[in-house]
Amino acid sequence: MSIATLTELLGIDLPVIQAPMAGVQVSAMAIAVSEAGGLGSLPAAMLGDDALRNELSAIRAGTSKPFNVNFFAHQPPVPDAAREAGWRDALRPYYAEFGASEADIPHGPGRRPFSAEVADVIEAFRPPVISFHFGLPDEALLTRVRSWGAKVISSATTVAEARWLAERGVDAIIAQGLEAGGHRGLFLSDDVGTQVGLFALLPQIVRAVRVPVIAAGGIADAAGVAAARALGAAGVQVGTAYMLCPEATTSALHRTALRSEGAAQTALTNLFTGRPARGIVNRAMRELGPISAVAPAFPLATAAIAPLRAKAEAAGSADFSPLWAGQNVSACREVPAAQITRDLAAGWAANPANAGS
Amino acid sequence: MSIATLTELLGIDLPVIQAPMAGVQVSAMAIAVSEAGGLGSLPAAMLGDDALRNELSAIRAGTSKPFNVNFFAHQPPVPDAAREAGWRDALRPYYAEFGASEADIPHGPGRRPFSAEVADVIEAFRPPVISFHFGLPDEALLTRVRSWGAKVISSATTVAEARWLAERGVDAIIAQGLEAGGHRGLFLSDDVGTQVGLFALLPQIVRAVRVPVIAAGGIADAAGVAAARALGAAGVQVGTAYMLCPEATTSALHRTALRSEGAAQTALTNLFTGRPARGIVNRAMRELGPISAVAPAFPLATAAIAPLRAKAEAAGSADFSPLWAGQNVSACREVPAAQITRDLAAGWAANPANAGS
Repeated sequence: MSIATLTELLGIDLPVIQAPMAGVQVSAMAIAVSEAGGLGSLPAAMLGDDALRNELSAIRAGTSKPFNVNFFAHQPPVPDAAREAGWRDALRPYYAEFGASEADIPHGPGRRPFSAEVADVIEAFRPPVISFHFGLPDEALLTRVRSWGAKVISSATTVAEARWLAERGVDAIIAQGLEAGGHRGLFLSDDVGTQVGLFALLPQIVRAVRVPVIAAGGIADAAGVAAARALGAAGVQVGTAYMLCPEATTSALHRTALRSEGAAQTALTNLFTGRPARGIVNRAMRELGPISAVAPAFPLATAAIAPLRAKAEAAGSADFSPLWAGQNVSACREVPAAQITRDLAAGWAANPANAGS
Repeated sequence: MSIATLTELLGIDLPVIQAPMAGVQVSAMAIAVSEAGGLGSLPAAMLGDDALRNELSAIRAGTSKPFNVNFFAHQPPVPDAAREAGWRDALRPYYAEFGASEADIPHGPGRRPFSAEVADVIEAFRPPVISFHFGLPDEALLTRVRSWGAKVISSATTVAEARWLAERGVDAIIAQGLEAGGHRGLFLSDDVGTQVGLFALLPQIVRAVRVPVIAAGGIADAAGVAAARALGAAGVQVGTAYMLCPEATTSALHRTALRSEGAAQTALTNLFTGRPARGIVNRAMRELGPISAVAPAFPLATAAIAPLRAKAEAAGSADFSPLWAGQNVSACREVPAAQITRDLAAGWAANPANAGS
């Protein structure tokens, strides 16, 4: 398959996908990017049925262009009381310091995997693109989303994961370089030592599969897009560069962190959800991690840290907040998402090296 | 300073530096690359005075073109008997398995930092370029190498390290992406979690300093060179792609590992020297690491593993050998180093996007 066909495949004008970023954006961002000719994304894993319907209604009202809805495809863990107790023990000194109460720990997992129930909710909206993180849901669910014409994409963090996805018939693969912010998509291994920088990952995945490959991780501006194209990408997925846009719901504390010198210091941490994700190093990561063997399995780590995060944030502190960011925040600007999209796409046009290949 | 000036600065025709790779190449590789128009490198840290003189004599006899001599700039550690004993305890079961003897553990550190004594040895050869890893030697030594006209370059693994090197007047900076094989050049921190993928590292260093920036890590072919150029590189440094060349002294076991499926699995390990370096995952890394708190400080970890490595290799096993490799072995070919050099350089010409900028 020609790598020049991503825009045709997805029905978009510009080969720029706005990365789904739960907690940082909802429909407004997706609408702005899709209207600009890229592919806007709605992160759905943290939305309940009503919120999901509301956001999808807003997108359908806001744009007639294609958009993407993103889900996690994890296996929900069996809750482990001993591990949960150990996690609460580790957090207790901070509860005392911030005056938080374990009575405020929310119930439920907080994030749900894609399921038949979720498919029931979204089917009426017929999202044109569905992206998954942490692999794929089962074949019956894939068949169902394809039944309304949705294209299916997912992230690979290794060549082996890319081959696994290609064998299961995905329409395109996101090569998620180690540089990327937020959750690592790894699913065939849980060893973060297996994770690969985009310069090495992208060309090897391009060579290993026959579907279009979307480059992600560390791409911040037109030059990054040109470089990704030179390495064989069919398009790019960019998150961090959008985080200061007016359409983002990024908190004031998170925005301040992104603008700070400290934003140069990111690390992979499992403290906030149970799975490794890249964020700006803060006190929790320094003192408890960044990787902790005590944190419960994804997504159960989130619950016990929530009251602490709330109290700290109320006191003006981001010490216990997930400050997701990639390794290149240099292009974060307070400009509309449409402008970020167009500026990125300019890098595609600037480098015709691989056109038609 | 224009980023187009690296070739002028170093007096070379092609903006391709062959990465110094101790244990894998000596003068023959450096001569071949320099004769092809790139910059060949001699890794000098493991060479005694006589060997260093011999290799430099060979280079001077083999080419009249510029070449690079590479040194480490570490502080030799104070030997720690307790830590050494702990390391030997950890290795003892393997000594028993392979019939190795602690009586065969070599004395001395094995690798030496650049020093006045080393400068005495090399001065007569007036190497045109000196590169350092792990920072820089003191100002007096830098003044001395500059006295014969040598250009000084060093590696940065973070933007902070690049600024540190620029403040000390280096002529060019190697942006060493996390993808790179062999020793990480990190020197302002010993936390491997600080290490950055080249896609994010390169453009941020280019923006932070005014000297030419050489991209390293994961660059395997012409497309990689074009991508590095798009991100602002003034040239590239490539190691892994040269490891199967006839001019390389890569062992048969190492060559077999590079050609295997397992070469896709690399990790950072401190087992073989005491400092984190990227190599193909083998039994030692799986069972003792890949990062061990027991391994003595660089370069002292090497000694006690040496008899084990020797016995294992004699038995046809690479279980205890450092199998240095970057995250992209896809371009390793058994072709002359001159051809690898020219093929890489073709990627520079193919992407004129940043010419003259």
